[in-house]
Amino acid sequence: MSQPAFASTPRPPYYVVTFSSQRTDGDNGYSDMAEKMAELAAKQPGYLGVESARGSDGFGITNSFWADEQSIRSWKAVLDHLDAQNKGREKWYERYEVRVGKVERAYSFGR
Amino acid sequence: MSQPAFASTPRPPYYVVTFSSQRTDGDNGYSDMAEKMAELAAKQPGYLGVESARGSDGFGITNSFWADEQSIRSWKAVLDHLDAQNKGREKWYERYEVRVGKVERAYSFGR
Repeated sequence: MSQPAFASTPRPPYYVVTFSSQRTDGDNGYSDMAEKMAELAAKQPGYLGVESARGSDGFGITNSFWADEQSIRSWKAVLDHLDAQNKGREKWYERYEVRVGKVERAYSFGR
Repeated sequence: MSQPAFASTPRPPYYVVTFSSQRTDGDNGYSDMAEKMAELAAKQPGYLGVESARGSDGFGITNSFWADEQSIRSWKAVLDHLDAQNKGREKWYERYEVRVGKVERAYSFGR
């Protein structure tokens, strides 16, 4: 990985977007797009970080973190991201679930 | 998988606990515990479902869904779960981050 797996999020409150998805078979340009979207998201106002994991069964979770609701809505409307969302429904995902929540508390452990 | 990957969550509001973790090397009893804890969690009052993904790099995300804050706090205090939490810090996880949020809206796509 070129990015650290854990996001460095600030003290709550902030927002989380949980994106759970089942991938279709084959890459079909997905990996390139995913990398570009990660870079583009990181440039958006209010972006706080992202964490992502996908198992060999093709089921994955991406949790992205945002300062507020407005920054989430703005990112959803970015043109290149709209194009990626369309391609996602056309060919990359069998199914996905998006949930938007306000993070109220957080804690961690590390060695 | 014996469980469906996607949780069937109700209309918001409800709560999400995001658990991001980096596993240590080796199983050391982790898989058995994870299965038992998933079964035990599903019996708790206020439990709404769970989604989980872990990549080959050992980084994983488990998002669990709950009716309210009280059910999250009660599950955290269940004795067998406390034991699992201790073992997690002793031997199963290099690091983890827990975030608790209130899900305010949700949407989905499926073929």
